[in-house]
Amino acid sequence: MRCEKGTILLNKRPALLAGGAVAGKKEGEGPLEDSFDYLLRDGRFGQKSWEKAETELQNEAVRFALDKAKLSASDLDCIFSGDLLNQCVASSFAHRATDTAYLGLYGACSTFAEGLALSAMFVNAGYARYTAACASSHFCSAERQYRYPMEYGGQRTPTAQWTVTGAGCVLMGFRENAPCIDAVAIGKIVDAGITDVNNMGAAMAPAAYETVRQVFDDTATAPEDYDLIVTGDLGQVGSDLFRDLFLVECGCDLKERHMDCGVMMFDPKQGVNAGGSGAGCSAAVFAGYLLREIQNRRYRRVLFAGTGALLSPLSSQQGESIPGICHAVRIGGV
Amino acid sequence: MRCEKGTILLNKRPALLAGGAVAGKKEGEGPLEDSFDYLLRDGRFGQKSWEKAETELQNEAVRFALDKAKLSASDLDCIFSGDLLNQCVASSFAHRATDTAYLGLYGACSTFAEGLALSAMFVNAGYARYTAACASSHFCSAERQYRYPMEYGGQRTPTAQWTVTGAGCVLMGFRENAPCIDAVAIGKIVDAGITDVNNMGAAMAPAAYETVRQVFDDTATAPEDYDLIVTGDLGQVGSDLFRDLFLVECGCDLKERHMDCGVMMFDPKQGVNAGGSGAGCSAAVFAGYLLREIQNRRYRRVLFAGTGALLSPLSSQQGESIPGICHAVRIGGV
Repeated sequence: MRCEKGTILLNKRPALLAGGAVAGKKEGEGPLEDSFDYLLRDGRFGQKSWEKAETELQNEAVRFALDKAKLSASDLDCIFSGDLLNQCVASSFAHRATDTAYLGLYGACSTFAEGLALSAMFVNAGYARYTAACASSHFCSAERQYRYPMEYGGQRTPTAQWTVTGAGCVLMGFRENAPCIDAVAIGKIVDAGITDVNNMGAAMAPAAYETVRQVFDDTATAPEDYDLIVTGDLGQVGSDLFRDLFLVECGCDLKERHMDCGVMMFDPKQGVNAGGSGAGCSAAVFAGYLLREIQNRRYRRVLFAGTGALLSPLSSQQGESIPGICHAVRIGGV
Repeated sequence: MRCEKGTILLNKRPALLAGGAVAGKKEGEGPLEDSFDYLLRDGRFGQKSWEKAETELQNEAVRFALDKAKLSASDLDCIFSGDLLNQCVASSFAHRATDTAYLGLYGACSTFAEGLALSAMFVNAGYARYTAACASSHFCSAERQYRYPMEYGGQRTPTAQWTVTGAGCVLMGFRENAPCIDAVAIGKIVDAGITDVNNMGAAMAPAAYETVRQVFDDTATAPEDYDLIVTGDLGQVGSDLFRDLFLVECGCDLKERHMDCGVMMFDPKQGVNAGGSGAGCSAAVFAGYLLREIQNRRYRRVLFAGTGALLSPLSSQQGESIPGICHAVRIGGV
């Protein structure tokens, strides 16, 4: 059912069955270490290139999720996936060996949230029995595509975020006593005119505010109705802006309830400046730490709002600002 | 409702309301000239770059579709879009000014079919009242991204296809007496091991065969149940392979009923070798010629099977083969 303003209510209780989260060495040295199913020892992961390593990261995440859900790949009816590489090749190559319907998505760092929302909508409508939502990123494959060559050793500004090496996969379907998604909100593109490619948090924060506020308005809920409102990946700078927007525009202080996947991923001592980013960041945090704590009933009512910056190196070279987007899914209790 | 093998039946009659099709100068010199709403006089379309011109192409296609459907942009609940540019920026920038929920897709040249399938599924499930499915490509923005610089003047092989400058947008919703989509099939990734980046048709034909055959099997239909089976964009080489696969594997000759958007777009005399390609090719052919002829009831039962080659320049440089994919939508009578 669709609310007047856009939030879509799902009444069939599409459930989160299991997650698989794989991350890199540096990510494993952060606070979420024990929530990952597998940690890479090096960036290559036994592959000949960083791009192939990223493909393998997604495959691993799917395997762990299937194992935990006691499902096999042939049980899946549809895979939703995407990544940051040009033409999303990490995802296409990861899923070419599966005999499963595939929908390629591009939402930058919001891709995992986009896939999770579509997964829930497919299961809810009976379009699929079991689905997988995946996303990945890799520090090295992203750095060489988006920024200077690694070898250049360019300085990172304080607002810059660190692209996470990681992948996450969450399986959905119908299952009793499992946490389920009861609402989704597909975001609008919001362009606040930010042009600094080292400040994605500022470019995405207004989109996060719009989508989260829309869910509150459409469903007549307030921050205190949620155990957790988790954005991904605004980083520290974007998180501060996101909270400020709520404080100034709505007079409500999210502080106690708000966390951000980019902030959660690393310890500030790890030298990542404003925090983590990349399509694999919120995917690995959601599929690992968040899903575990939701299943443990530490968090029962969670609003997960994945954010993306819809730029390319070329669009920035052509002087364009950075459009942001945010898709949200609301997780209810078991 | 989902068939056992994967085709999804839509029983609420989500309808094709209107289409907008915009194309370049060369495309306007081809056989479909009179089916486009607007033809560019030059590749820049009044913009400072080819990429910005491609963005404007999508905007124009949406405007024409809205006009014909007698809807305004604010009536749309969701836009599905994608393109071939790195990080799909033609689409993100086209839709940033609209105050509408946006889902970014990446399916290479199958992106329009992917968007059309999701549009139909959203309308059918009540997730949206009105949707837009869009896709675009631009010869110049694609050439400089995928191949040698234009100025290099590299030779094109006989199997090569010509990236279409064009965009298409189709609006969906519920409307009496309008043609509707009654089934969709989300494709699997099929990798036949083709490594020649100048032969996308061969890379995509097996995926087209798999998806079209799946629809036949799942819905107990045969080629003679359709007025038209239209692929996009296999080009001439891929079309021949696609028909051969049906002849050899199933013993059925599609010839009279099969057309391909890449073949339809140009006259062989236009020097495009195996035909047109690009995400905008099947989008502009469907939103222009095909939708007009479906609305005219020249074709009542149509299976539209959009094909994509899920490679990137980097994946080919790393020696990878080219995975193909094909998503199909079935259009019923009015």
